[in-house]
Amino acid sequence: MSTAAPAVAQVLINGTWKDADTQSTFQATDPNQNQTLDATFPVSSWSDCDAALDAAADAARKIRRLPAAKIAEFLRAYADEIESAKDDLVNAAFAETGLAKSPRLADVELPRTTNQLRLAADACESGDWAMATIDTATGIRSCFEPIGPVAVFGPNNFPFAFGSVSGGDFAAAIAAGNPVIGKANSSHPETTRLFAVAALKAIQQTGMPAATVQLIYRTSHADGERLVADPRLAATGYTGSRSAGLKLKAAADAAGKPIYLELSSVNPVVITPNALAERGDAIVDEFVTSVLMGTGQFCTNPGMVMLVRGESSDQFIDAVRQKFESTAAGTLLSPAVAKSLSSSVQTLVDYGAKLITGGGDVESDRCAMANTLMTVDGKSFLGNPDGFQTEAFGNASLMVVCDDLEQLCQAISHLEGNLTGCVYSATGSSDEDVYRKVEFELKPKVGRLLNDKMPTGVAVSPAMNHGGPYPSTGHPGFTAVGIPASMIRFGKLTSFDNIRAERLPALLANANPTGKTWRRIDGTWSAGDVS
Amino acid sequence: MSTAAPAVAQVLINGTWKDADTQSTFQATDPNQNQTLDATFPVSSWSDCDAALDAAADAARKIRRLPAAKIAEFLRAYADEIESAKDDLVNAAFAETGLAKSPRLADVELPRTTNQLRLAADACESGDWAMATIDTATGIRSCFEPIGPVAVFGPNNFPFAFGSVSGGDFAAAIAAGNPVIGKANSSHPETTRLFAVAALKAIQQTGMPAATVQLIYRTSHADGERLVADPRLAATGYTGSRSAGLKLKAAADAAGKPIYLELSSVNPVVITPNALAERGDAIVDEFVTSVLMGTGQFCTNPGMVMLVRGESSDQFIDAVRQKFESTAAGTLLSPAVAKSLSSSVQTLVDYGAKLITGGGDVESDRCAMANTLMTVDGKSFLGNPDGFQTEAFGNASLMVVCDDLEQLCQAISHLEGNLTGCVYSATGSSDEDVYRKVEFELKPKVGRLLNDKMPTGVAVSPAMNHGGPYPSTGHPGFTAVGIPASMIRFGKLTSFDNIRAERLPALLANANPTGKTWRRIDGTWSAGDVS
Repeated sequence: MSTAAPAVAQVLINGTWKDADTQSTFQATDPNQNQTLDATFPVSSWSDCDAALDAAADAARKIRRLPAAKIAEFLRAYADEIESAKDDLVNAAFAETGLAKSPRLADVELPRTTNQLRLAADACESGDWAMATIDTATGIRSCFEPIGPVAVFGPNNFPFAFGSVSGGDFAAAIAAGNPVIGKANSSHPETTRLFAVAALKAIQQTGMPAATVQLIYRTSHADGERLVADPRLAATGYTGSRSAGLKLKAAADAAGKPIYLELSSVNPVVITPNALAERGDAIVDEFVTSVLMGTGQFCTNPGMVMLVRGESSDQFIDAVRQKFESTAAGTLLSPAVAKSLSSSVQTLVDYGAKLITGGGDVESDRCAMANTLMTVDGKSFLGNPDGFQTEAFGNASLMVVCDDLEQLCQAISHLEGNLTGCVYSATGSSDEDVYRKVEFELKPKVGRLLNDKMPTGVAVSPAMNHGGPYPSTGHPGFTAVGIPASMIRFGKLTSFDNIRAERLPALLANANPTGKTWRRIDGTWSAGDVS
Repeated sequence: MSTAAPAVAQVLINGTWKDADTQSTFQATDPNQNQTLDATFPVSSWSDCDAALDAAADAARKIRRLPAAKIAEFLRAYADEIESAKDDLVNAAFAETGLAKSPRLADVELPRTTNQLRLAADACESGDWAMATIDTATGIRSCFEPIGPVAVFGPNNFPFAFGSVSGGDFAAAIAAGNPVIGKANSSHPETTRLFAVAALKAIQQTGMPAATVQLIYRTSHADGERLVADPRLAATGYTGSRSAGLKLKAAADAAGKPIYLELSSVNPVVITPNALAERGDAIVDEFVTSVLMGTGQFCTNPGMVMLVRGESSDQFIDAVRQKFESTAAGTLLSPAVAKSLSSSVQTLVDYGAKLITGGGDVESDRCAMANTLMTVDGKSFLGNPDGFQTEAFGNASLMVVCDDLEQLCQAISHLEGNLTGCVYSATGSSDEDVYRKVEFELKPKVGRLLNDKMPTGVAVSPAMNHGGPYPSTGHPGFTAVGIPASMIRFGKLTSFDNIRAERLPALLANANPTGKTWRRIDGTWSAGDVS
């Protein structure tokens, strides 16, 4: 309420910036200096969650009365506001994450973020996401409708594109017609606050319900679990560590609440001997670029390479080692990430992984660790497959060197669920038999299969699956990236049986609601009217 | 292995009928006589589950190598075998469930079952279910692929159409390319065994993997929980009681395994005063037919009617009472159902529901209870909404009589998730304001909204949602009935990123795999080739 800058940042509840019911406070760290930043943020008590849930439940009712075009208008206005606040957002995110201002934050992640919001606006307005299905013979029609208030827990590694009140889960939830309660990632609270400022401006410009977007920075673990299980909440999107995510999952599951999780993934890359023999140097370059990009802090970072032992694998490992050693180690997102990476590498070494290079600190005040390459032989891997799949989130990778193709396939069959799996093979047809064997084992384990391409890039495509079998996510049928597929997660399937024509939602009326919405009418996909 | 009829029925594991590793045995009851049937069935030990899981995992690998047309061929052959075994199936189900041979079993449920299998075969062959999505700009393509071995726990009330190895979950799981381990409902084990006999014939005729369909009859609760969480199992379909279902859900959730549940529903029917004034007699007839059909043992039975107090509601309740009293009480499926119904009615009465008629036994040896009608006023309902939503599965219904529309809407807002919700209103436009208010509260609570129609029928339509918010099911985005939508539950979304053309699955190749498969190509649904 005060116009002076508050000593502790305020939470955004029901359209008002207000002092949190504060249990304690926290500050983020500038990882480039390894110094605590001045801005102070509240750890909210349950009463803040309670107020946000009440307001969200009310907003959900109001949004249900609005036309899709109004929601789309908000999403577009918000994208514009983000562009207006670009310099502040980039500066804040740089200070809090150490990610490069350019090209990463300003020229890649920010445009991706506004693009996602605008694609979500289009999908919302068109209604294509809702899978409208019309069966004239039985008089039954169905579509997805808003699920209700959604909580979004964003990760540390994409302060914009996966942000709690700006990213993919947020865009999907809003575009499906739901209000969002954002829980900021504790490593970049100021960045998230600036997004919420921009969102509130867009809310006010477009006349959306005040609680369409709300923001809390942090709660106790117990309150987080209470939040995702609350009767007023409908669903949760979470991207982050497996341990915290599984606690939220247990709480949401017990209450029968959908929770969509993106937890962890080592993203195996299989490289055949023929591929290495044919273009080993090029693959070294592709791999090193991918694994060190963003200091390896991508959900789809290639944290595991699977090879068959031989001269070509020795050369490959040695070439990667040289590149790792000659490339400056990037900055990690926070002291916590640095500590976790160091600990995971130590765990892998304790299990028996051989440290080829790295593993230690770099001479710098930054949050950083030397680029780290480890190897393990196939037999050892098979002796402890779970242990050797410990995710080392950051600039580290483990090469599993198998005796032969059979052992390689056996190792793949012991993989957990992953977001991605890649196969590099010879460009001709000489590897087709090998490929078929590898693909047969690998495909069931991954959400996205790649050929001759590193997994790091996650295109915002309607065909993208940024998802995968457990424990990479909580359900193998959903994607967190890609419009409109990611919106389905925040929809409730509803059939309309014998509903009078004038009472049907516009999406299911005989007349096509936009003149171009795709609907499945009597088994035929059509952008026309019901004849 | 023996050719003589075994004293205890054998389980079907990996294509072989074999003696179970038996912990104990059980027998079903003929509810028309309330007498134990002769046939004896094994309660399997974990070793039977373990063997079935090994075989299912192997079968899943084999099925993945088969063309969709082969799976479709099996489903059609199985439908034919069911028709050949019709008399035996009808006789067995009649003895075990008391459901009428005709029309119910022979002329309604059996044709529905074979129709579902043939629709599933068509959907499997066409590939329409898999939501193939092609993005030529990014080179990414996606579709749903088989999820892996599926366990199906069928309910007591549809021995054919929802049977563990014959019903909707079964058909959807198989058509999506997965083997099924059926867990028979303990109230109709012989019926389920006969289906498995027919399924094995179809497996052998069509050369499907031996473990495509397996059957166990019963396990301990602990082994059931272990089964749904086993690493070799991919997903579970369950229809049955809420208490047993939630235990399986907890076990599956903890292991990160999808489980699709259909648990319970009171299926509220709201009838406006104007509708009663206009056509009360007709609505009485519709309601009584629906609520007593199958002795009320439908998932979509209208167990709750919501009215506004007045002369018309008094007349309606009295007319229903008269019909309840003049209609012979049907036979319940089993002694357990009779006991549970009696207990639930007592619970409702203990909470304060007024018994208008019924509530006691009928003079007969049959498993039966008098047709039971109860009422409760709106204020009392609002004082204990959870209690008054106790499901009384069978020929019973509770009428909630509210003081006015406001109280009615408040009562609706306290409903749990339900499969269905109906609104009866005046045929003209006089009720439109009332309808809008009621619909606004009711729609978020139900999977299927109806107008002027009772909920009992569940058409096998592509637009059907036989699902709903928790606790009617475990997730509001999935339907258990309706081809192809129900198949998605047993699919795993997979993206193919930069995959060489010759390595793409047929569904995602440039050429349309069947010449008529619907695919979303660059945002446009098309049954053609990629241009």
